[in-house]
Amino acid sequence: MNKSLQTDRTTVRRLPKRGSYERELVYSILDEALICHVGFVVDGKPVVIPTIHWREGDRLYLHGSAVSQMLRTLRGGVEACVTVTLLDGLVLARSAFHHSMNYRSAVIFGYAAEVTGEAKIRALHGLVEHVCRGRSASARPPNELELKQTLVLSLPIDEASAKVRTGPAVDEEEDYALPIWAGVLPLRVLPQEPIADDRLPDGITVPDYVRRYRR
Amino acid sequence: MNKSLQTDRTTVRRLPKRGSYERELVYSILDEALICHVGFVVDGKPVVIPTIHWREGDRLYLHGSAVSQMLRTLRGGVEACVTVTLLDGLVLARSAFHHSMNYRSAVIFGYAAEVTGEAKIRALHGLVEHVCRGRSASARPPNELELKQTLVLSLPIDEASAKVRTGPAVDEEEDYALPIWAGVLPLRVLPQEPIADDRLPDGITVPDYVRRYRR
Repeated sequence: MNKSLQTDRTTVRRLPKRGSYERELVYSILDEALICHVGFVVDGKPVVIPTIHWREGDRLYLHGSAVSQMLRTLRGGVEACVTVTLLDGLVLARSAFHHSMNYRSAVIFGYAAEVTGEAKIRALHGLVEHVCRGRSASARPPNELELKQTLVLSLPIDEASAKVRTGPAVDEEEDYALPIWAGVLPLRVLPQEPIADDRLPDGITVPDYVRRYRR
Repeated sequence: MNKSLQTDRTTVRRLPKRGSYERELVYSILDEALICHVGFVVDGKPVVIPTIHWREGDRLYLHGSAVSQMLRTLRGGVEACVTVTLLDGLVLARSAFHHSMNYRSAVIFGYAAEVTGEAKIRALHGLVEHVCRGRSASARPPNELELKQTLVLSLPIDEASAKVRTGPAVDEEEDYALPIWAGVLPLRVLPQEPIADDRLPDGITVPDYVRRYRR
């Protein structure tokens, strides 16, 4: 599918040079991020809920409880705006005005459809791998009841944009001479020491995919 | 203001024991997070945009360019749903089904009003301090033109909720005997080595508030 992701409403208007409609960039943001924020309209009012997302090919997946109000609303034909943001650093300029952040974000508009049967099982496998690559081979797979209690939706990624800021502060020319430290403070989401469950049987060690976890 | 933050639509329905309407908890989440996701409705459709937020007392602040479509829409009397999420860790259960994440999130509904005059200057000072405590004393303050180019909005925090998951995986009783590692992989947003600007005058060293940066 090579259709453009750009539409009138996905066109980045503020600082358009930061905008992109490249699938590769949008997908890299979706794949790195662990959570998204899903917006939808209820009684004419906005609701924004954080949840896990994942991607397979040109579709974005969401899941949750079969009684989730958000998922049931979306399944009912209500449009979603799914936004994913990775914060890469603080940009400290000489002037307060030019302070900024380095980030990568993606915004996707679309209608979600329910995923069922074998495709649902494959999708849930993909979810575990998205969150923790290598984990799905060891976790107990979902049984019939658990599958029934889980709702999986997917939406096509065909109306989207990315927005990215990178690099140093950009100050007013006359401010560069000021005796004020300026620069970028990079931020990273980093795993800390794993906390083993209290009820592990003896001899079960931390798997490599946990010990070496990286996004 | 001791009015309850709980209303029908801020009532946490999925896993209600994770929900809270305590100001102290909502505020601690807002104060730790560097970005929020702002949802609003345009032509009946949801839009979710990431941006910086900050809090002063019982009000939440947003800012941006004076020509920002989002801010102009909100200023025009369109309701916002502002959601903030802190991801604290991956919860790896024995079963795929019981995998989860530890998180703290806050959702605020409200109408934003423009902040002007002295209050605007104070608010922008608060913004810099929210992002980087100690920075506002050294950065050049905004001049008249910069103030004119900046729009500051605030909304009352009087309809909100928090949702929090902490602690270990919760598996089905019969799964605890399985030879599968389970536990929590904590995640933290951590500052990396500061990158000094290429154009710093000689002798300007990294300030303590950057070197020791912590949320």
